[in-house]
Amino acid sequence: MAERLIYLPLGGAGEIGMNAYVYGYGAPGKERLILVDLGVTFGDMDGSPGIDLIMPDLAWLQQNRDRLEAIFITHGHEDHLGAVGHLWQRLGVPIYARQFTGALVRLKLEEMGHPANVVNITGPRPEVTRTGPFTVQFVPVSHSIPESAALIIDTPAGRIVHTGDFKLDGTPVVGDPFDPILWHDIAGEGRGIKVLACDSTNIFTPHPGRSEAVLANPILEWVMAQKNLVVATTFASNIARLKTLAEAAIASGRKVCLLGRAMRRMVSVGLETGVLTDFPDTISPDEAAGLPRNQVMLIVTGSQGERRAASAQLSRGRYLGLQLKEGDSFLFSSKTIPGNERPVGRIMNALSELGVDVYDADDGLYHVSGHANRPDIEALHELLKPEIVIPMHGEHMHLREHVQMARARGLQAEIAVNGTMLDLTGEAPKVVDQVESGRLYLDGTVLIGAMDGIVRDRIRMALNGHALVSVIVDEEDNVLPDAWVELMGLPGRTRGGDDLARHVEGELAEFLEGADARTVGDDRKLDEAIRKITRQVAMEEIGKKPEVTVIISRLMAD
Amino acid sequence: MAERLIYLPLGGAGEIGMNAYVYGYGAPGKERLILVDLGVTFGDMDGSPGIDLIMPDLAWLQQNRDRLEAIFITHGHEDHLGAVGHLWQRLGVPIYARQFTGALVRLKLEEMGHPANVVNITGPRPEVTRTGPFTVQFVPVSHSIPESAALIIDTPAGRIVHTGDFKLDGTPVVGDPFDPILWHDIAGEGRGIKVLACDSTNIFTPHPGRSEAVLANPILEWVMAQKNLVVATTFASNIARLKTLAEAAIASGRKVCLLGRAMRRMVSVGLETGVLTDFPDTISPDEAAGLPRNQVMLIVTGSQGERRAASAQLSRGRYLGLQLKEGDSFLFSSKTIPGNERPVGRIMNALSELGVDVYDADDGLYHVSGHANRPDIEALHELLKPEIVIPMHGEHMHLREHVQMARARGLQAEIAVNGTMLDLTGEAPKVVDQVESGRLYLDGTVLIGAMDGIVRDRIRMALNGHALVSVIVDEEDNVLPDAWVELMGLPGRTRGGDDLARHVEGELAEFLEGADARTVGDDRKLDEAIRKITRQVAMEEIGKKPEVTVIISRLMAD
Repeated sequence: MAERLIYLPLGGAGEIGMNAYVYGYGAPGKERLILVDLGVTFGDMDGSPGIDLIMPDLAWLQQNRDRLEAIFITHGHEDHLGAVGHLWQRLGVPIYARQFTGALVRLKLEEMGHPANVVNITGPRPEVTRTGPFTVQFVPVSHSIPESAALIIDTPAGRIVHTGDFKLDGTPVVGDPFDPILWHDIAGEGRGIKVLACDSTNIFTPHPGRSEAVLANPILEWVMAQKNLVVATTFASNIARLKTLAEAAIASGRKVCLLGRAMRRMVSVGLETGVLTDFPDTISPDEAAGLPRNQVMLIVTGSQGERRAASAQLSRGRYLGLQLKEGDSFLFSSKTIPGNERPVGRIMNALSELGVDVYDADDGLYHVSGHANRPDIEALHELLKPEIVIPMHGEHMHLREHVQMARARGLQAEIAVNGTMLDLTGEAPKVVDQVESGRLYLDGTVLIGAMDGIVRDRIRMALNGHALVSVIVDEEDNVLPDAWVELMGLPGRTRGGDDLARHVEGELAEFLEGADARTVGDDRKLDEAIRKITRQVAMEEIGKKPEVTVIISRLMAD
Repeated sequence: MAERLIYLPLGGAGEIGMNAYVYGYGAPGKERLILVDLGVTFGDMDGSPGIDLIMPDLAWLQQNRDRLEAIFITHGHEDHLGAVGHLWQRLGVPIYARQFTGALVRLKLEEMGHPANVVNITGPRPEVTRTGPFTVQFVPVSHSIPESAALIIDTPAGRIVHTGDFKLDGTPVVGDPFDPILWHDIAGEGRGIKVLACDSTNIFTPHPGRSEAVLANPILEWVMAQKNLVVATTFASNIARLKTLAEAAIASGRKVCLLGRAMRRMVSVGLETGVLTDFPDTISPDEAAGLPRNQVMLIVTGSQGERRAASAQLSRGRYLGLQLKEGDSFLFSSKTIPGNERPVGRIMNALSELGVDVYDADDGLYHVSGHANRPDIEALHELLKPEIVIPMHGEHMHLREHVQMARARGLQAEIAVNGTMLDLTGEAPKVVDQVESGRLYLDGTVLIGAMDGIVRDRIRMALNGHALVSVIVDEEDNVLPDAWVELMGLPGRTRGGDDLARHVEGELAEFLEGADARTVGDDRKLDEAIRKITRQVAMEEIGKKPEVTVIISRLMAD
């Protein structure tokens, strides 16, 4: 059969997070493969209580591991590289990334005890990486972290441009500007662009995006206007923003103190790799605590309300010897990611209780997005003139809107969510397969499947409480008097004021007394009967049916 | 001691939700009291899993029940009357409300089996209710539900205006307009306004609010432009919006079908009480299913992503014989309340998967807020010229901003969060007490305290999982071989691939074998030791410490 070019997202398509995109070229079922990005997404109490990190289930890729050539990482955000430390071993192939990104990937690998030398540091275009049927170039694009790259993936079936995350920023403060002439040249080479796999995050934002550089003046003016201690929070990886904030501090006679491990790490990797130059000297929390309040700016982690980050700690009181007070000022130089409104609100209110004046970026003065807005995406379509547009990095509604926009412009376009394999060889993309895709949860130190039922049981316990029943059956299949009931996460008293556990025990005792030998002799039947009674009694007495675990102990004759 | 005028919020101050405000007049500690509003707030998985309704803990009011004269309900929103059915019995005093609101209060009471005749239907000013030292008038204000009222509370210490929820809307479509001349008169009577207790919800919104009436044209144009089935969702209680939507449907040749119990109930109470007139005839879901798609508009509940409401049901597939399809249109004529972004997003994406075009109100065309914005609040301050402003109906940051605004205008103002008692007798408000305040959770059919630990245990099980250990000790204080371990919400396998429960059992068996008689003979010690080992072993094997429940069964000699 003829060779074909395939695209298969395993993460990031139908969601914003845990990016992982597979491209393949070869005979059907025998394509040689590359993986672009290997990121995480973050758990939440709603859908995944107790889970910090969520990553793509790579089962399909593991089954086809012998066909996988390499992993390419576009940039250093967690949703693009955060799973490398946890999943690299399952794939075992070389990783390619630019210098700053590569340094972050190496840290991830080292943390998990893997060899850092599997990372190959790759320069930007015109440097090329040849692997299997693919020739790959990293093309600098602007984004909210330095050294972001789009990938040019040349294959015998034509040229793919995989944008990664990008915006059209000619003055990004730190990192590479978006260069339309460079992209014009790329589009003009050879047969042009066959496929554009394109960031869809901001497809619903109607106005053109704004440059990182527009923030310098508003931020400086804001800092100048503050009379006491100034605190600013933003995404740790937004090194350009850190620089803008720090320079505003220096210009207004303040020293800068960085709080939060992620922030210090990003700045140090930035300096080590040469991406970041001229970052002002920083001072320690001790030094900051010793200076007059109007001579200090803290730049801190936790813009999304993370419970253990510096912002949250400061909002709760003393942290590393520093304490916020009436008249201090706190700037969220960040956007609240949907879903984080409540934790961010909690911090803002806690700061308000301390008398701290809180400023956010809602009016656009103190934050710009790192993603291309709708007109910017259109401009990229126009610049690259691809035959086919495949929207990625978006929830279903973003992908759908992006497809509609591309089609309205006369381009071929198709929605492919995680697990959908597209054949891109012909004029129009064609769905050719649905493969198993899913999510893995990092639970403590163990990777579990999202569908394993473990987290489902936790959610059920959280919603319904948990009743435990212990029953002892003696050597002659007699149930010892009184089942023992313990409740966890359930009201202790019934509506009528009785002790709920004792009440359930009474009902169970009555049942067990009259239970027939067939039921008592059969673990499954006994378990089922006890569970049913417990749930019924609870429903009557407190109006809810708890999860029930029954432990049946059978005494053995010596 | 001289008599004094006090204000004591028990809900709604320091949060948006579960409003409950106490006013009192009399000798300190002997004030006669009234309660304004008795609302609920809604639980979430984050902070209160398994809890649907949260309401104020009225312990203080119950202790002082003999001093309570009456309850006044300002309007029919759940956060102002939702707790009446659950808590009225603890107070046992008459309830006063206007007709539409009163009808809703009666339904709440009847649902819980309480006498509906405790509700006294009260006309608007100039009708007065005298109770104890208070003379109370309901003054119509505009809001997002009909018959909203501010209260004028006249006391020997002066006049209080309690705004309830309000906006400055001269053309609210349904219900009373805001009448500045009326308020001018009220401010000019007698000694003027001593205290303004004022809605703070939109204090951070810088532009003047917009009238409900501005939506009619955009909504009509939107409906006219749609080619297939049209669905619109909004808050069920926003009867003006329902009318605007329904009239747009009729004007564009569509029949209207209402889906969702709350929506049908609101419309029928609106019609019965005469608040709503000229609402178009509606059709049943069956009839709707039988008509061509371009002749129907569904108006449905679930604008906040509620899992069981009509919007969610429709997004998941067939509902009451109706099924959305490619080319249908779905309008969120509503704002997403902070914290609901994820569930609303889930519905939007599910609709996108069905091929439905989703429209939201982000550009302001299809929704207006029901609350006064910052300039509107300023205008009310100006109109009423109160001596003292007490901000309410807001999180701490809203209250603080409102106080700052009032002070900047030369007014006395003070933040009082739930439980803070203010003395309003003098020129400036004075904090005179902090009373116990808190939250009650409706868990199934039982009211539990938020601090009882029940929900805390559920959250812990959700985050950490739950390990159950059953141990049997015989008549001679020997532990029977093998503790039995059951896991709920925990990985079945250790990092090394072993069965986790069996592994913990092994470690426990080893401990129990060597345990001394003092430990085995003492339930508390044995429990503690088993719990500790279980947590340690789990930490080593899966990197997390579960909640542990130990059941020790001691066999008795016959």
